[in-house]
Amino acid sequence: MGVESDVKPDSVALHPVGAAGAPEVMGIFGTGDLGRSLGLRLLQSGYRVVYGSRRPHSCGPVPQGAEVASHAEAAKEASLIFVCVHREHYEFLTTLTPHLKGKVLVDLSNNLKKGIYPEANAAYLQRLVPGADVVKGLNTLSAWALQNGLLAGKQVYLCGNSANAKQAVSEMATKLGLTVLDRGSLSAARELEDFPLRLFPEWRLPLLVAACLMGFFYFYLLIRDVIYAYVETGQDISYRIMISLANKVFPIVSLVMLSLCYLPGCIAAFLQLYRGTKYKRFPNWLDRWMLCRKQMGLVALGLALLHAIYTFIIPIRYAVRHKLISRMKNNKTTPFYFDNKEAWGTDSFYVLGILGFFLYLLLGLTSLPSVGGSLSWREFSFVQSKLGHLTLSICTAHGYIYGWNKFLRPSTYKWYTPPGYMLCLIVPSVVLVLKILLLLPCVDRSLTRIRQGWERNPPLIEVNKASSL
Amino acid sequence: MGVESDVKPDSVALHPVGAAGAPEVMGIFGTGDLGRSLGLRLLQSGYRVVYGSRRPHSCGPVPQGAEVASHAEAAKEASLIFVCVHREHYEFLTTLTPHLKGKVLVDLSNNLKKGIYPEANAAYLQRLVPGADVVKGLNTLSAWALQNGLLAGKQVYLCGNSANAKQAVSEMATKLGLTVLDRGSLSAARELEDFPLRLFPEWRLPLLVAACLMGFFYFYLLIRDVIYAYVETGQDISYRIMISLANKVFPIVSLVMLSLCYLPGCIAAFLQLYRGTKYKRFPNWLDRWMLCRKQMGLVALGLALLHAIYTFIIPIRYAVRHKLISRMKNNKTTPFYFDNKEAWGTDSFYVLGILGFFLYLLLGLTSLPSVGGSLSWREFSFVQSKLGHLTLSICTAHGYIYGWNKFLRPSTYKWYTPPGYMLCLIVPSVVLVLKILLLLPCVDRSLTRIRQGWERNPPLIEVNKASSL
Amino acid sequence: MGVESDVKPDSVALHPVGAAGAPEVMGIFGTGDLGRSLGLRLLQSGYRVVYGSRRPHSCGPVPQGAEVASHAEAAKEASLIFVCVHREHYEFLTTLTPHLKGKVLVDLSNNLKKGIYPEANAAYLQRLVPGADVVKGLNTLSAWALQNGLLAGKQVYLCGNSANAKQAVSEMATKLGLTVLDRGSLSAARELEDFPLRLFPEWRLPLLVAACLMGFFYFYLLIRDVIYAYVETGQDISYRIMISLANKVFPIVSLVMLSLCYLPGCIAAFLQLYRGTKYKRFPNWLDRWMLCRKQMGLVALGLALLHAIYTFIIPIRYAVRHKLISRMKNNKTTPFYFDNKEAWGTDSFYVLGILGFFLYLLLGLTSLPSVGGSLSWREFSFVQSKLGHLTLSICTAHGYIYGWNKFLRPSTYKWYTPPGYMLCLIVPSVVLVLKILLLLPCVDRSLTRIRQGWERNPPLIEVNKASSL
Repeated sequence: MGVESDVKPDSVALHPVGAAGAPEVMGIFGTGDLGRSLGLRLLQSGYRVVYGSRRPHSCGPVPQGAEVASHAEAAKEASLIFVCVHREHYEFLTTLTPHLKGKVLVDLSNNLKKGIYPEANAAYLQRLVPGADVVKGLNTLSAWALQNGLLAGKQVYLCGNSANAKQAVSEMATKLGLTVLDRGSLSAARELEDFPLRLFPEWRLPLLVAACLMGFFYFYLLIRDVIYAYVETGQDISYRIMISLANKVFPIVSLVMLSLCYLPGCIAAFLQLYRGTKYKRFPNWLDRWMLCRKQMGLVALGLALLHAIYTFIIPIRYAVRHKLISRMKNNKTTPFYFDNKEAWGTDSFYVLGILGFFLYLLLGLTSLPSVGGSLSWREFSFVQSKLGHLTLSICTAHGYIYGWNKFLRPSTYKWYTPPGYMLCLIVPSVVLVLKILLLLPCVDRSLTRIRQGWERNPPLIEVNKASSL
Repeated sequence: MGVESDVKPDSVALHPVGAAGAPEVMGIFGTGDLGRSLGLRLLQSGYRVVYGSRRPHSCGPVPQGAEVASHAEAAKEASLIFVCVHREHYEFLTTLTPHLKGKVLVDLSNNLKKGIYPEANAAYLQRLVPGADVVKGLNTLSAWALQNGLLAGKQVYLCGNSANAKQAVSEMATKLGLTVLDRGSLSAARELEDFPLRLFPEWRLPLLVAACLMGFFYFYLLIRDVIYAYVETGQDISYRIMISLANKVFPIVSLVMLSLCYLPGCIAAFLQLYRGTKYKRFPNWLDRWMLCRKQMGLVALGLALLHAIYTFIIPIRYAVRHKLISRMKNNKTTPFYFDNKEAWGTDSFYVLGILGFFLYLLLGLTSLPSVGGSLSWREFSFVQSKLGHLTLSICTAHGYIYGWNKFLRPSTYKWYTPPGYMLCLIVPSVVLVLKILLLLPCVDRSLTRIRQGWERNPPLIEVNKASSL
Repeated sequence: MGVESDVKPDSVALHPVGAAGAPEVMGIFGTGDLGRSLGLRLLQSGYRVVYGSRRPHSCGPVPQGAEVASHAEAAKEASLIFVCVHREHYEFLTTLTPHLKGKVLVDLSNNLKKGIYPEANAAYLQRLVPGADVVKGLNTLSAWALQNGLLAGKQVYLCGNSANAKQAVSEMATKLGLTVLDRGSLSAARELEDFPLRLFPEWRLPLLVAACLMGFFYFYLLIRDVIYAYVETGQDISYRIMISLANKVFPIVSLVMLSLCYLPGCIAAFLQLYRGTKYKRFPNWLDRWMLCRKQMGLVALGLALLHAIYTFIIPIRYAVRHKLISRMKNNKTTPFYFDNKEAWGTDSFYVLGILGFFLYLLLGLTSLPSVGGSLSWREFSFVQSKLGHLTLSICTAHGYIYGWNKFLRPSTYKWYTPPGYMLCLIVPSVVLVLKILLLLPCVDRSLTRIRQGWERNPPLIEVNKASSL
C-alpha cells in the first residue's frame, strides 16, 4: 500500500488530555500555516490530530503531538477532515474517493479575489468527492488568531447539505470556544467564501465621507488662501499647502465628522417624537448611518490627532521662524504693549482645544474592545452620550473662539466667501441646538415615555385582542 | 383565540445548530434593543427563540431565525421567558397568569434611578404573577455587549426563590459564556437592580482626591503668582490662569497621585514588618486605598498627558512670543554669552520629563485589560513594581531639577510660602525613602520571610494541635 | 480530634449554582493571594471550596461562600487539593499523609529564582506525600488574572505521573475556561516551574538589537558632532548630548528597526523563490527573526514616539531660544529674503514625518490583542503588509528629504565619515528595493504559485505513490 505513518516519538508524552476515553481523531490535509495552527488548537482542545501529507517524511514542522501520514491513511483514521489546501490542488482528492466515503470534509478555503471561479470552492469539492459530506465554514479564522488563541466567543459561519455533518463540525467548533451560526445548505458556500474578502466594510462609508469633506475643504481653502494671495497681491505662498492648509482641513473635517456621529441620534429621537412610537423601523439610510457612528468617531479622532501634531511642530517650521525674525527687524509692526485681551483669547482657544482633544482620546479609549467590554451599560452610555456631547460642545467652542475677533472684519470674507472655520461650525451648531431641544424637560419626558414603550396611537384592535386572552 | 404566530420563512434554514435533538425554546417578551440582542445571542448558542409581542405582525425587526408570536402563544411554547419590557408595562402580564404558571420568568430590568419604586422590579413581577418562578439577574448585561459577543468570562449575578428556576437560568447563562454567581433569594433583587446604576464606583475616590488636590494647588498658585504680582507690583498677569497655572497644577497633582499609588504598598510592608505576620487583615482604609491604585495611576497618567500637551504648545502662545520679541528689543536683558550650565540644566529637566512620561505610558498600556491579561504574573509584577518605581524616581528627579538653581534664592519664597513644586515633592520623596528602606538587605529578608508565611509570634496552641494530627 | 470547621453563616445563601446535584468539593491549602483568588474563581464555576488553614478561626478573609477548616478536615472532604503554600512550608504536609492518601495534589508553586533547589517543587512534594498523586500545573496563572476573570482561552500546562489525576485537573481547568496542554510525567515539573520565571523572553532579542544600534549610533554621532566641534574649533557643545544627539539616535534606530521587521519577510520570499518550494524549513535564525517581528516593530514605535516628543519640545529649549535671539542681534546671518525652496523642503520633511508616525501608531494599535483579534485575516494582513510597507516608505522618504540639500556639501562628511542619517537609510532602502523586486509581475506570479503549493522539483517518487492509491 505504500502508506507510512510518521508517529513522532514524543506524541505519547504530549498527548493532550481530553474527555475520558480515547480522544476523537481529527484529520487535516495540508501542513501549511493554517493547517499547523488549526492542528495545534485541536490538540490543545483534547483531540488527536493526524495530518495527511503528500510526503509524510518531509512535510515540514507539525505541532508537537500530531501524527503525519499519507492522505489515504489519514482519511482512514479520521471521520472529520479539514481540507487546508488551495482549491487549485483539490484534484488530488479524486484519487482518495474510496477513503473519503461518508467522511465529513470541512472546506476552509478562501479565494484571493471574488468571482475567479464559476462555482464555490465547497461546491467544487462536493462535486469531486460526491461520497463525502462537505461542510463549508470556519473560513474567517486566520492562522494568526488560531495561533494566538484569540478564538473565545468569535462567531463563525457554516453551511452544508448534511445536518449530521454540520452538527459534528459545530460541536468541534464549540469545543474550540467558537460561536457557530448555521447559514443553511451548501448553496450558501459562495456567500461564506466572499466573507473574508471584505476589507473593513464598516469603515468604507466613514472614510468616503471623510475623503469627500477633506477634498472639498482643501480646494476651498486653496482658493481662498493661496490663489487669492497670488491673484490679489502677487505673493507666492504656495509652501503653505503642505502644513498650513492641512492643519486647517484636519480640524474642520474632524469637527464635522464628530458632529455627524451625534446627528443621527438626534434625528432618530425627533423621528420617534414625530411618529409617537418607537416600534416603527427607521429608514434604511438612518440605520446605516447609526451603524457606522463608531467608525466615524474614530476617523474624526485620527484627524484630531493629526491636527494636534501639526500644531505642535508649528514653531519649528522655517516659515514661522522667518516671520518671527523679520517681524523683529521691522520695528513698525512689533507690538510695544502687551494686549491682555489677545492673551486671554488665544489661551482660551488653546485650552479648549486641548481639553476637547483629551476628552476625545478618552472616548476613543472606551471604543477599544477590551475597555468597552469591561464597562456596564450605564457607564458605556454615560461615556458615549454625556462625555461625547461634552466633547462636541468643547470642540465647537474651540472653533467659535478661533473667529471671535475676526468674523466682523470685512477682510475675513475674501472674494465674498466665508472662511472654512465658519462653514465647519454649521453642522456641530445644529447638532448642539437639536440636543438642547431634546433636553428640554417637556420634550425629554415625552421621549422617555416613548422609549419605554408608550405610543401616541396604539393599534387599538390588537391590544384589545391581547387583553381578551 | 386570535393568536397568530409569525414564523419567518427563513427560520428553518437559519436555525442554529445546538445539541443533538430538538433545541430548547427560550421566550422573550419585548422586542426592544435588549430583547433583540439577547435573542440573537441565544440563537447563536443553539436555542430556539420565540418573541412575545403585542403586535406579532408589526413588531419591528427580530434576529434572523427567531419566531414572533403573541405573548400568550410565546408563553405556551417556552418554559423560560425573559421579560425585556419596562417595569411600567408589567401590568399586562396579569392577563397571562394562566399561561405563565410554573414558568421561569427572568427579570432583566433596571431602573433609571435608585429608589423610585417602593419594591424591587422582580418582587413586583413575582406579586403580579405569583404562579411563576421569578429569577432576577443578568441585568448588568448591556445590549451592546450582547451584540458584540463580549460575554466570555463576564460575571453575572442572579437571585430568586426557586432553586430549580435559578438552576435553569444558570445553565443557560453558562452556555452563553457567562460566569454566574447566586446571590440568594429574591429579597436580594433590590441590591441587584442597584448594581448597574453605579457609575464608575472604583473611580470615585481617585477622582475626588485628584479634584481636591487640584483645587488646593490651583488656589495656592493663584495667590502666589497672580495675586502676589498684582499686590506687590501692580502687574495684571491674570491671563496666566488659563495655561501657565494649569500647567503647574497638572504635573504637581500627577506626581502626587503617582506617589499615592505606591505609598499604600510601602505602608502595608511596614505594617507586616511591625506585626511580624501577613495573616492579619489590613485596616479598612488601607484595603480601600490599595484597591483603587490602578485608577489613581490612570488619573495621574491623564494629568501627565495634559501636562505634556500644555508644554508642547508653550511656544505658540501669544504671551510667550511677545516676551521673546520684547526681550530682543530690550537689549539689556538679552544674554550675550551662552550659559552652558543653564543649557545642561534645562535639557536634563526636559529629558527626565520625557523619559518619565514615556515609562508612564508603558505602565498605562499594561493596565489595558487585553495587554495586562497577556502578561505572566512575573512580568506583570515587574512592570507594576520595578518599572513603576523607576517612573516615580524619574518623575521626582524631574521635579527636583526644576528647582535646582532656585531653592536658595529668597525671591522663590514669595510671602514666605514655598513654591508649589516643593510641596509636591514631599510625598514622592517620602515614598522613595520608604522604598529604599524596604530594599535594604536586612529589611528585605525579613519581609520576604513574612510574605512566605513565617510569623514572629505564631499562635502556639493551634499549631501544636495541627501538628498532633 | 480538635478539628473545627468554620462554616461561614452566609455560605448557604451564596452557594454558587453548578451542575445538577451536589457540587464537587475542591480543597485549597493556604489562604494567601493566590489561594483566595483561585477559590473565588472555583466558587464561580460551581464548585464547593474548602480551605485548609493552620488557624481556621483567624486565617484572614476568604471569598464569600467558601468554608474554612483545618488542613486535615479539608483533606478529608476534597478529592482534589490545591497546594497554595510556599515550598518552604511543604514539611507540614508529612503530618497529613494518612488524610492525603489517594488524593490529587495540585502543585501551583513557583520559585523566586532558577535552580535554588536540587529538585522540582512538585517532585519534592511527591516525595513528602508518596501516597498522593501530585500534578504540577496552572503555575503560570497570576492571582491578578484569576481575580479579574482573564482566563478565557489562556493556555496552561500540567504534568504528573497519574493519568487519572491529570484528567481530573484538566476537567477542572477546562471548566474555568482554560486550555490545557499535557507535558507528560512529573519529570517535566522543573521545566514548568521555570516557565513563569521567564521575563519577556520574546522581547530580549529586539531590545538587545535596539540597545546595540543605539550604542553604536550614539558614539558615532558623539564623535562626529561634539568631539569634532571641540577638536576642530574648540567649541564646547557638550550640552547637546542630552537632547540633540538623542533626537538623532532615536529616529535612526527606529527606522532601522522598522526595516528589520520587513527584511525577514523579503529574505523568506527570495529563499522560497530560490528553492522553488515552500515545503522546506527556513533556517533557524530566520525563523527566530520572524517570530520577534512584532516586538521589533513595537520597540521601533516606542523610539518613534520618543523622537516625536523630543521634536515637540525643541523650541522651548534654552539653546534653541538663545540661538534665535543671538541670530537676531547678529544682523549678518539674518535672512532678509524668504527662501521658498527651503520652506517647501522643511515642510515636506515634517509632513512625511507626521504621516509616517501616524501610520505607525495605527500599526501599533492593531497589535493590541483585542484590536488585532477583531480583524479578519485579510484585514490583518492588509494592515501589517500593505500599511506596514507604506509606513516604511514614508519614513524612509522622511530620512531622504532630511539630507536633500546636504549630501553634496563637503562639510557634511566631517572627518570623511558619512552622517548618521545616511547610514540609517541603507537597510530601509535595501528592504524597499527587495520588496519592489518581489512586486514585479513575473516574480510575484512565481511566488504566488509556490505559496499555493507548486514546486519546481516535486519529489517524484512519493507523488507517484500517492497517485497510485
